[in-house]
Amino acid sequence: MSQPRERTVFVPAGHGGAIPVAAGELLSVVDLEGAQVADFVAIQRADPRKAVSPHQTRSSLRRLTLRVGDRLVNQDREPVLEIVRDDVGVHDLLFCACSPALYRQRFGLTDHRSCRMNLLEALAPYHVEEWQLPDPVNLFMKTPPRPDGEFDFHPAPSRPGDRIVFRCLVDVVAAVSSCPMDLVPINGGRITSLELVVGPAA
Amino acid sequence: MSQPRERTVFVPAGHGGAIPVAAGELLSVVDLEGAQVADFVAIQRADPRKAVSPHQTRSSLRRLTLRVGDRLVNQDREPVLEIVRDDVGVHDLLFCACSPALYRQRFGLTDHRSCRMNLLEALAPYHVEEWQLPDPVNLFMKTPPRPDGEFDFHPAPSRPGDRIVFRCLVDVVAAVSSCPMDLVPINGGRITSLELVVGPAA
Repeated sequence: MSQPRERTVFVPAGHGGAIPVAAGELLSVVDLEGAQVADFVAIQRADPRKAVSPHQTRSSLRRLTLRVGDRLVNQDREPVLEIVRDDVGVHDLLFCACSPALYRQRFGLTDHRSCRMNLLEALAPYHVEEWQLPDPVNLFMKTPPRPDGEFDFHPAPSRPGDRIVFRCLVDVVAAVSSCPMDLVPINGGRITSLELVVGPAA
Repeated sequence: MSQPRERTVFVPAGHGGAIPVAAGELLSVVDLEGAQVADFVAIQRADPRKAVSPHQTRSSLRRLTLRVGDRLVNQDREPVLEIVRDDVGVHDLLFCACSPALYRQRFGLTDHRSCRMNLLEALAPYHVEEWQLPDPVNLFMKTPPRPDGEFDFHPAPSRPGDRIVFRCLVDVVAAVSSCPMDLVPINGGRITSLELVVGPAA
């Protein structure tokens, strides 16, 4: 029998990447240089209308925060991923992916890369259309709500090589975007690369 | 020319209701007896894949809270509704609709009404399928996050007759559920009725 092989996708700074992950495998999202937000989605292979839902996950956990042992659920409250390791402990379940509309409306920019288009580019081989793109979980992003309901925007606290590791509970295609947002401080002033690593559970 | 006519849909306690609203019209969601959460969705008639998105609205406002003058946007960040009056000022943009899966998983109940099924029943004449149902805005619901990221659950602060009024910016079908959740205190211990009222702008 052949050894299960580890697969890696390098995600260039400000771009996207995707990788299929089978149930039972471990998926790592690695911040290679630190302080880089990773917009993350996971869409189920058996039914692409089902995907990790930050809305349902928040409700299911009754928390805005993620911890080791938490299960990320889809819109039918079925578990999709379980967090088995987390070097950072700071993630966002509240913000949308940055998009052409965001850069146009808020900053007057019509030619800026965006997480939305990065994710769509990365998911194009998997036939995901724009209207199907789920809301993301924004890994390593530190934008906590204040008591008045407004948000603070801090640099991502991840250090070089920090990772979050998920156990996959169903077959998915996972995608991340190295968030190209350089107009607020969330990426520490420098957009850098990420890595996706998939391997068998130890 | 005929007078524009006001249309009303009475929403029985623990059930759902829906109403088409044209661009330019005003839509009121009325809490008839007070302390009743109204799970609310608005789906665009021209393209039912587009709907008010709490995720995008939160990001667009950069707030967890809603105010008069705010615009609720769809997944493409296009404005759908504008708040023109709000007697309550407390709403939730974070929780999913309660669902059969929630009552089963959290409370072991297999035969409890839910906002999800209420909304789907109300939207059935508009051919909305379960996988298309958008995440709701939970009107009058008081479940603020605490600094530690967990949520508090308070009774809805709406008084009898309180309403929120939206100006419709595009043609939608709007639906609400009188939230049947009687196992946490959000509905003040008693599930009561709502009303949808649509009329021309004054």
